[in-house]
This record gives sequence, C-alpha cells and structure tokens, in this order.
Amino acid sequence: MDNDAQTGWPTRSLSRRTVLTTSAVGLAVPAVVAPGAAPRREAAAQDGTVKRVTVYAEALPGNLYGYGLAPGEATVPGPTFEVYEGDTLEITLVNNTDRRMSIHPHGVDYSTDSDGAPLNNSFNNPGETRVYTWRTRGMTGAGGGSRRFMPGSAGYWHYHDHAMGTDHGSLGVARGLYGALVVRRRGDLLPDRQFVAVFNEMSINNQVAPHTPIFEARLGQRVEWIAIGHGNQFHTFHLHAHRWADNRTGMLEGPADPSQVVDNKDLNPGSSFGFQVIAGDGVGPGAWMYHCHVQSHSETGMSGIFLVRNADGSMPPGAQDAVDRFRGHAHGTAGAAGRAPDRAQPHEHH
Amino acid sequence: MDNDAQTGWPTRSLSRRTVLTTSAVGLAVPAVVAPGAAPRREAAAQDGTVKRVTVYAEALPGNLYGYGLAPGEATVPGPTFEVYEGDTLEITLVNNTDRRMSIHPHGVDYSTDSDGAPLNNSFNNPGETRVYTWRTRGMTGAGGGSRRFMPGSAGYWHYHDHAMGTDHGSLGVARGLYGALVVRRRGDLLPDRQFVAVFNEMSINNQVAPHTPIFEARLGQRVEWIAIGHGNQFHTFHLHAHRWADNRTGMLEGPADPSQVVDNKDLNPGSSFGFQVIAGDGVGPGAWMYHCHVQSHSETGMSGIFLVRNADGSMPPGAQDAVDRFRGHAHGTAGAAGRAPDRAQPHEHH
Amino acid sequence: MDNDAQTGWPTRSLSRRTVLTTSAVGLAVPAVVAPGAAPRREAAAQDGTVKRVTVYAEALPGNLYGYGLAPGEATVPGPTFEVYEGDTLEITLVNNTDRRMSIHPHGVDYSTDSDGAPLNNSFNNPGETRVYTWRTRGMTGAGGGSRRFMPGSAGYWHYHDHAMGTDHGSLGVARGLYGALVVRRRGDLLPDRQFVAVFNEMSINNQVAPHTPIFEARLGQRVEWIAIGHGNQFHTFHLHAHRWADNRTGMLEGPADPSQVVDNKDLNPGSSFGFQVIAGDGVGPGAWMYHCHVQSHSETGMSGIFLVRNADGSMPPGAQDAVDRFRGHAHGTAGAAGRAPDRAQPHEHH
Repeated sequence: MDNDAQTGWPTRSLSRRTVLTTSAVGLAVPAVVAPGAAPRREAAAQDGTVKRVTVYAEALPGNLYGYGLAPGEATVPGPTFEVYEGDTLEITLVNNTDRRMSIHPHGVDYSTDSDGAPLNNSFNNPGETRVYTWRTRGMTGAGGGSRRFMPGSAGYWHYHDHAMGTDHGSLGVARGLYGALVVRRRGDLLPDRQFVAVFNEMSINNQVAPHTPIFEARLGQRVEWIAIGHGNQFHTFHLHAHRWADNRTGMLEGPADPSQVVDNKDLNPGSSFGFQVIAGDGVGPGAWMYHCHVQSHSETGMSGIFLVRNADGSMPPGAQDAVDRFRGHAHGTAGAAGRAPDRAQPHEHH
Repeated sequence: MDNDAQTGWPTRSLSRRTVLTTSAVGLAVPAVVAPGAAPRREAAAQDGTVKRVTVYAEALPGNLYGYGLAPGEATVPGPTFEVYEGDTLEITLVNNTDRRMSIHPHGVDYSTDSDGAPLNNSFNNPGETRVYTWRTRGMTGAGGGSRRFMPGSAGYWHYHDHAMGTDHGSLGVARGLYGALVVRRRGDLLPDRQFVAVFNEMSINNQVAPHTPIFEARLGQRVEWIAIGHGNQFHTFHLHAHRWADNRTGMLEGPADPSQVVDNKDLNPGSSFGFQVIAGDGVGPGAWMYHCHVQSHSETGMSGIFLVRNADGSMPPGAQDAVDRFRGHAHGTAGAAGRAPDRAQPHEHH
Repeated sequence: MDNDAQTGWPTRSLSRRTVLTTSAVGLAVPAVVAPGAAPRREAAAQDGTVKRVTVYAEALPGNLYGYGLAPGEATVPGPTFEVYEGDTLEITLVNNTDRRMSIHPHGVDYSTDSDGAPLNNSFNNPGETRVYTWRTRGMTGAGGGSRRFMPGSAGYWHYHDHAMGTDHGSLGVARGLYGALVVRRRGDLLPDRQFVAVFNEMSINNQVAPHTPIFEARLGQRVEWIAIGHGNQFHTFHLHAHRWADNRTGMLEGPADPSQVVDNKDLNPGSSFGFQVIAGDGVGPGAWMYHCHVQSHSETGMSGIFLVRNADGSMPPGAQDAVDRFRGHAHGTAGAAGRAPDRAQPHEHH
C-alpha cells in the first residue's frame, strides 16, 4: 500500500501508467513534480532556488508525442512543473523524437535563446539536447509615483512545443506535447490533489469519452484543477456542483473581492487557469461531470468524471453505476443496484 | 391599468403572452419570480428560507419546449428564479412533455440526485414528477491559515435541461428549456427592471430579429441584464451606450476595484453574467441596440432593442421610428417625422 | 532627426506611411493623437476639456477604407483617440467615400444622434459631413445606501463604422474602418510607446504575415498595447515573454489585487483590452512574437513581432536574423551570423 503521507490516499490501485496518463495524482510539491512520485507538502520554499530537471521528448503509441522525466516515461499531458515566485527552472530537453521540437512556457521569464520558437532559432533538432531556462519573480512597483505593481509570475500556466511541424508547433501541440506549469506566491494554499485537463481540439488530454480521465478525490480534500486550452476550436470548461472565483487563485481574497464566481469558463487556445475546490463540499460525494459546455463538443467526447469518494475512500451510493454508465456509454436509465465499493477503474491508456 | 407599485410602470399594454416571451418585466422579487406577476421589492430576506415551487415542462408552438410556473404557461426562457445566499429552492418538476428531460442548475449546491444529469440517473421520464433541491450559501473561510474565502453562491446563474435528446440535453437546450437563476448577497441592490437575454445558437431567446425582445425601461430606472450563452456557437454580447464592470455585480465595489469596464463580453455556451445599468444615464432615452458583435450573427438576426422611454413613460423623439425600422427591417434612412408616443409594440410570440 | 522628447526615440527611419500603417509610434498624449505627430507627455489634463477633431473617411489601396486626421492621410487602423475621464470628444466626420458610413464608439457616452447606427438614422451619406459627440465621466456612487460605484468611462476602447454595407457596418469593419479609443483616469501612468493590434477576421490590422506590424521599443520603455477584436472569428492574443494583469490597466492595483495574470487572452469581435509592459523586463531585448494562439490562425498569418531593441536603440544579437526570417518566411534554422544593428525594416504598406 502506497499512501500519500498527507492524505492517506491509497495509490496502489492506480497503475503507474494510469496515473501518468490521467495526471490524476496529488502533486502538492513545491518545485518539479514527477507524476507518480509520492506527493510532499511543504509550507514554504527557499527564495531563488534553482531547480534542474531533464525532460525527454519521445513518440508514444497512437501517433502521439509526450514529454517525460525519464526515457520511456513520456505522458500526455507531460509532467506538471511547480515553483514559487523567485525560483528558476532549468530544463535540459532531450529530443528523442525524429522531428524538430522545443519547449515554450507561458507566464515566466526567459531570454530569446530559451523562447522555444524557431523565430529565435530556439529548438532541438532530432536527437539534440538543449537547455531552456525559465525564471520567475514577485510583483514589483510600477514606479512613476504610482502605487501599482507590475505583476509577478504567479499563475496557473502551461508549456508546449513551438517547433514541431511548423514554426508555431501546430503538429507537436496537436499530438500531445504540452503540460501544466504552476507558479505559486508565498502563502498560497497547497492542494491535496491536482488535476490537469487540456481541452485540445475535440479531446481532453488527447482522449475522448469514455477514455477521458476520471479524476478522483475523497470528500473534503482540497483539489486543484488546472485547465489549459489548445488547438483550433473554442471551448468552455464546466464542472458540476463546484464553483470558483474568476481570479488568480479561484478563491476570494477577502469579503470585498469583486470577482465573479463561475462554474463555466472560456478555455481557448493558449489560455489556462486554475482553481481549488473542496471535493464534494456542500454537495456530497458522487460522480460529478466535467465537460466542455459547447453541446456538440460534449456530445462527441469532451466529457469526463470528477469522482468524489467518501472520506474513508469507499465509493458512495450510485457512483459506481455512474462510472459504469460513463464507461459503457450506457446512456440513460441504467438502474442497476448498488455495487461493491472501490471498484472505480480509472481509464488506462491504450 | 396595472402599475408596478415600485415604479409606476404601466404594464397593461403588454399582453401577458408578450411579457412571458420577452421576459421584459421588472422582477425585483427576492425569491421565486413568476413572469407577469407584479414585482415586489424587499430590502432583505430571512436567512435560510426554503422556497418551494412547482415547474411544468411542456411543448410550445414552433417546435419549442418551455418551463412554466403553471400548466399552459411555459415560456422561453423559463421563469427567473431568485434567492438570497442561504436560501434553498425546492423545485417540483412536472414533465408534461413526451420526452425524457430534467432541470440542471449552475452555481448552486445540489446532491447527485438533483444533478439533472442522466449520468446520475437524475431526470424525469415523460409524465413523471420529480423534486430537485438547490441549496445556496455565503462565502466560508478557506482555512489553512489563509485569509481567503471559498466563494459563496451569489451570482447571475442559469438552469437548463440536461436530459432531452441526449445525456447532455442538447435537444432540450436547443428547443428552449433554459432560464435565469439569480443568487443575491445580502445588501445587493435590487433592480427596477430585469431582462434575460439568452444567446442560443443563432438566436436570442430562440427568436431572430425582428422578433427578438424589445426590452423597455424608463429613463433613470435601475435595469438588470442577465445574459446567458447556449448552443454550439461563440458569441459576444454588446449593449449600446451603457457599460458595466466585468465583475460579480457589474458595479465597482469601490474606487480601488481593479475590474475592467466593458460594453462587450464573451457569451459562450454554459456561461452567464449579469449587471445593472441606469437606463439612459448620461446618454438620454432612445432605442439602443443590443446585439451579438460577431458580424455575421448580428446580420442574421442576433440583434434587439433596449427601449429607454422618457421618465414619464412617453416615447422620446425618434424612438418609434427606430422601433418601426427594426420591425420592418426598413434598413437605413427612414426619415419619417416624429410620431405619437407610447406606440412601441413589443414583439408578440407567434 | 526627429526625436521623441521623452524617450529620444529616433523616428526619422520610419517613413510616415509606415508609421501610419503600423501604428508603431509613441502616442503618450492626453487627448487627440495624430499618428506621426511628436508624442508629448502631460502629467494631467484639465477637467471637462472639449477636444474637437475632424476625421476624414476615404478609400485606400487594396480595397480598404480608413479614417484619417487629414485628407489623404487615412490609415488602418485609424488614429488613436485619447482623453481623460471628464473630457468630451467632438468629431466632425467627413465622408469622402462613395458609400454610406459612420463612426460608432465603445465605452463612452453619446446621444442617439451620435450612435453611428442606421437604427437611429445616425450616419453619413456619401460626401456628407456630420458631427458625433462622445462624452466621458468618472465613476459615480451607485446610491441606495450602497458603497458601490457605477463605473466611469476609463478603459481601452475602440471605434468603428456601423453603417457601411449593412446596418451593422460589416463591410466597413471588414475593410478597415476601425481604431482605438483610450479613456484614462487621472493618475494613470502614461506610456512611452503605444501599439494597436486589431484582430480582424484572419488578419492583424488587415495585414497578414509577413506584412503584419513590427512594433518597436527600446529595452526598459513602458509600452502600451491596445488589442481589439473584429469580424466573424474567435481569437486569442498572445505575447511572448511579457505578461499582464487581466484588469483595467494590466497592472496590479496593489498586493491584494486578486486579478489573474495572463499572457494570452480572448480577443473576440467587439471586445478590446489594453495593458502596459516594460519592454524586455526580466527577459532582455530581442524579437518577441505576438500572435493569435489559435493554431491555424497563427499559421496563416496572424503573427507579428515585438522588436525590443537595446536601451541605446541598437539591435540586440540575433534580432535582425529573426526579423529577416519573419520577413522572408525563411522558417526554421536560419543560422546566419549577427548582422549590423539598426537594420530592422518595419513593414511598409503596399
């Protein structure tokens, strides 16, 4: 039994492969996160830490490509990178594909040689290794007698290829070369679980229902969602029975925070956002849908399940039926009686 | 003469049918609102009130379906529901159609059996009656030593079918099974008039110009707009000569509220927002356009009129000409002289 | 040598025609801005100033139309208008085209006769001159015992034709009749440079790469971007290596400002936003891409360059290569050695 020290979450029933594919693992670590690694929770991190990580790009079954933290471990989406404002992330990218490719981040600071764009001659030829440096920082006074601040790096960002197929990386992005990048501000609340959902063309994480991720948490856990848009279509991200503030953290900064509260948000190419919810808070455990709210998109596969288990990890009444219904596309009145708990089978990549 | 006690607004000239169709009636009541009912204004409401309402789903002419508060009274959009944070809304849904259907809300709390989604076996078969319970609450401390808050339920939300035709309710939504849901925070300003505009596919409230709603108010009245997106297309909602803050209420919470001020906002499937403006403030009375700003969408019928009358209810110069021009699609230089006031004829459903 | 008094920016190498086309000129003036005029910086402006300007609409080569501040000087986009809250802008529009057209603003106050919409008989017939009056104001108390404010006019707005071809001005907008309108609040920081990028159908400022604008600044300059959406497509605006707060100014109003920080934002028809960045701050000088992040849109020409020169105006290493690569569509591994500085050739209109 491999328990999350923080949450007691059983992870043995999740195959490594599944975990990698769905990114449905708790990732409350402050810097670089290896999917499948035991999550750690740290109250703070040192200022200006330099994190070094080697990333391997490689071909995957199903005509996909992925980024991974070791050869043979590439996933779609790639590993989630996580730092605090002030940290630097130094990525050694090994291109084990037979195509030109790169890694281009959103939200952070980088020189032209780490741009990841062919415009700046910043990419890896096939077989080539290249270092990309991403720096981050806190907000700084705007000057000019103003009390305003130029914004820091904190945000729910993402990274993606910018060189495969075209100068904009359209082939790489279409085939799976993308992932999440979280920059936290000191004092930000760390989640128990973290999910990454990428709306890419007519897929979620390059999968369509019923092969889309089933993201799991226990009732009461603090769950962080990171939503990323890619491709050529417009989308809206909707989560049932949970809502968030449309601001940096998804929470209200105080009683006077004017932010709109939403449960549906535009998720268009190149955009990303994140938020934290308490799983099942005020609504109870169960199988809750998340989906693109463009009707034809949800109909053709852009839909998945946020499975909120009971606090002890067992399955709440009806949830297994819902999962089976989703898996089998047994639309409608599946009225089968309750089944044994703990039988949810997170999607396995194939 | 049937005057709004609050505003003195004459409603006799609006047929009940018209009112229902256009939702152009003042709705400043704190809980459940029956379109056509005399608006009431209450400064506050009790905490945790349970409101019970029976909703009837039925077929309408024109291949539509609607929700209504009595048999034979279904409308598109359906009745606007309005509660304060803390209230519970218990909806007894009577399905008088011959299809499977449901009611699914955004923004509020509900258990899986009130989800309205076939995934959770939550829907009404033809002829079936079922109770859906929607709970609301205020913001709560986020814990973890943070001064942040998990957001409460307050917002301009909406509800819609999630079961007719498909498991995502695509048929029900396309045919008119939708409406507005307002959750207020204590102390929120109540409007004199309230309009609901649903951009659904290439229609507004399943109508196209010149049959789209003419929303009426008097100069100086506080008008609340609720905009809802549905379907498969992307849209932008634009209102002439009025603007609002892009936050929860549409007003600035104070001089330091950083929100962008807009008069055009994305309105994509599953999203909704609301705001209050003072009719004609700083610009005067007149016939003001509201429309989707996607050029081909406004050209093909996603356009209507916000008719701001004089403070005494009479028609301002030129407004009747504009209404006639709009109705007759008499595009261009209709230069007819001023006509008698009070002749505006809000669209009648047919 | 024609230097910007504030920045010492050399403008001689930019032909007037280029400047007009690309709007790549510093425009830190408080009221009406003539593209190509020497920018001035003023710390404040008088309250309630009335600015009067004559605007000429005329046909341009390439089947375009434009607004200009003198006959023969029309550009796409048109001149940027800039006022402080409280100012009035009185525009005398001379229609030197052979079609019906108008000028319709976003965000400001106007009577129906200045609406610019045929619905209100507000347009210019061919050869006709007509005055349009746009008023602005600060925020005002919302009343009703509330501490809220009805928003003032401050914002990054825009104006466009609303009468050419159709009652919605679809032809005029498609052909170039649009421009930026900035309303500042007292105390807002003034930029050193100002760029206007209009995502109109599949173009930027009705140009496609490699003829899209190359916007230039020096390292450390305060640069203001104004992004405007038009047409029938959805877009997302992305800028490499720079980010901004998703609020009114693009800066954080203070440490507690909850706004999300973004480097990619929806830019759909009728919407606009603006922000200020410090050119190359934390990332250094170079040729930075800005583009629509919808992959097929960037591939087919919705991409340009933000050229950040060294502080002394010279070209940083690699930047000229990047510009040449962009111009020649020499995609990929252009590895030519560094070239002489100051050879960047901003796109010339043809």
